[in-house]
Amino acid sequence: MNEKPFVRPPLIVSTRTGADLKNAMRNRCLGITVLLLLCLSVLSVPAQTAQAQPRPVSQPTAKTVLERLGYPPDAKLLIVHADDLGMAHSINRASIKGLDSGLVSSASIMIPCPWLPEIAAYARAHPQADLGLHLTLTSEWKLYRWGPVLPKERVPSLLDSSGYLYPTETEAAAHINPKEAEAEIRAQIARAKALGIQPTHLDSHMGTLYQTQALFETLFRVARDNKLLVRVSKEWFLSAPFLPSLLGPDDVVMNTVISIEPGVSAEGWSKFYADAIKNIQPGITEMIVHLAYDDEEMRGVAFEHPDWGSEWRQRDFEFVTSEAFRKLLQENNVKLITWREVSERMRKSKN
Amino acid sequence: MNEKPFVRPPLIVSTRTGADLKNAMRNRCLGITVLLLLCLSVLSVPAQTAQAQPRPVSQPTAKTVLERLGYPPDAKLLIVHADDLGMAHSINRASIKGLDSGLVSSASIMIPCPWLPEIAAYARAHPQADLGLHLTLTSEWKLYRWGPVLPKERVPSLLDSSGYLYPTETEAAAHINPKEAEAEIRAQIARAKALGIQPTHLDSHMGTLYQTQALFETLFRVARDNKLLVRVSKEWFLSAPFLPSLLGPDDVVMNTVISIEPGVSAEGWSKFYADAIKNIQPGITEMIVHLAYDDEEMRGVAFEHPDWGSEWRQRDFEFVTSEAFRKLLQENNVKLITWREVSERMRKSKN
Repeated sequence: MNEKPFVRPPLIVSTRTGADLKNAMRNRCLGITVLLLLCLSVLSVPAQTAQAQPRPVSQPTAKTVLERLGYPPDAKLLIVHADDLGMAHSINRASIKGLDSGLVSSASIMIPCPWLPEIAAYARAHPQADLGLHLTLTSEWKLYRWGPVLPKERVPSLLDSSGYLYPTETEAAAHINPKEAEAEIRAQIARAKALGIQPTHLDSHMGTLYQTQALFETLFRVARDNKLLVRVSKEWFLSAPFLPSLLGPDDVVMNTVISIEPGVSAEGWSKFYADAIKNIQPGITEMIVHLAYDDEEMRGVAFEHPDWGSEWRQRDFEFVTSEAFRKLLQENNVKLITWREVSERMRKSKN
Repeated sequence: MNEKPFVRPPLIVSTRTGADLKNAMRNRCLGITVLLLLCLSVLSVPAQTAQAQPRPVSQPTAKTVLERLGYPPDAKLLIVHADDLGMAHSINRASIKGLDSGLVSSASIMIPCPWLPEIAAYARAHPQADLGLHLTLTSEWKLYRWGPVLPKERVPSLLDSSGYLYPTETEAAAHINPKEAEAEIRAQIARAKALGIQPTHLDSHMGTLYQTQALFETLFRVARDNKLLVRVSKEWFLSAPFLPSLLGPDDVVMNTVISIEPGVSAEGWSKFYADAIKNIQPGITEMIVHLAYDDEEMRGVAFEHPDWGSEWRQRDFEFVTSEAFRKLLQENNVKLITWREVSERMRKSKN
């Protein structure tokens, strides 16, 4: 396993309360590290090569994925991905600017959120933009909230006592009936398509769908039915021991997901990303950023929640649209790619 | 009828597309002016005084209402009312500042909107604030929208093809099944109470519930069941000929509703309000304002809609929180009152 000091494993990313999630996950994964490291050696390996000589544990699948997708074996590929589009106007504005800069290569949309019409209009006007769905089963802020796409009566297990989606992924996972989660995320995909959004990939807001095996199975079933890839990182296998058995040879597993977690100071922001980019290894890496402006709206959305708050998102925005970021990518031979490109290459590889 | 040149009758206020509404209403009211003027002479008059000498048509009810509520006969009473709370953070911030200034005496909340939790928290923390419900059957913006409180399957006639509430009050009124409207506004009231909001009055966002007799009857039935007063102005009788017959002696009818409509220039803003305040007559007047900041969020909300847009709302905010406004009220002996005060006096008068 290609551990990097700047990403703290075990770690499930795309969560707004990473610490809670990590603690929950740690309880499940004691004593399984050796087993998982063995699992890594066969994951994402096409069936015809599964019997080949085991690769070194430190780099078990990257070359195979690169070969499968037709990339050079030393290619360092990066998806720079903005989460949470549709959640707020401040997020939409900053994320669109990031996408238009060319330095943010991909993003995903929260279908139940109030600013969906703005980002749906962008998607229709920019059909080549790499926009996936940030499947949403939580509503995490205090002053500003949303409910499900389906009628509340059909998904009662998704709702807290106020009638909105649960505020945290742990509360959500503890209460959600996976069948209702499946109906809701299928409805989110259908709603996206009805609005003219053709999603290129799926991921899970706050990692709710990575919390339990049943939810993860749900996510994968829905993704495969829709022929869409899902964000998965090798690093998560340690904290989600059920994950490897659910993956098949046509799933694309990231080497690493780079994502800032609470604990990085404002002063250390650029250094965190610079170190992460310098350490990118051959294979596919995803860098998850949360873009917004530190404005009144975003301060209101993230009221009393500095983690993933307005200043955090402003810092992310400034970094990923900076010349320093562009230069770092060039100097380290990191090539930006999209989920669309990965999916198309995977489809071709199957033909 | 106490016509004032600065409020263009016939006029139903609390609408974001007043011109459309006025045209629709005009078609229904030709030839009934004389009948209505006669109606004015008996409206809001308690049963025991209904046989008294008819009052002059130009001032038919004001003194009676003042007497009934225990005010001096020459009292010039004004409810300064901010609409649309809960719709956006910018609106909440500016409206709370207006309420806290003391120069905005009342406001009403849109229960289906995403920023409801913020204003519900304010209501719980300020139980004496005069907060009613701005019953909401429309979702009028392009980039930012909301749906009903009830499950969509239960109120299909309230929804446009995108699954949100209709964008205009005329489209809404043309499609809404009054039974579904009734269920939805009862659900909005129930949801408000569940969140700790004790509404002091009701009004209708964009005047949707004033569009047809069936909708108006619905509004009044729900209001009476909840023992809540409803915003009604004598001026509306001309454009809504069904209105007088629906009112009873315990309804409180405003002399005038002061509300800026499209056509007033930015430069003429303060003069419009100053003229209106100087012309306030004895009785109860309501001044409806739409408060927000001209910030990125509000510009996004009101995208391509300058009427009731961000600059409009910033101008309203600046006027109602100005020393000039406070001075105008003092100089013209206008006393600010609330819906709570009016309701309590009406209740006492019945005992």
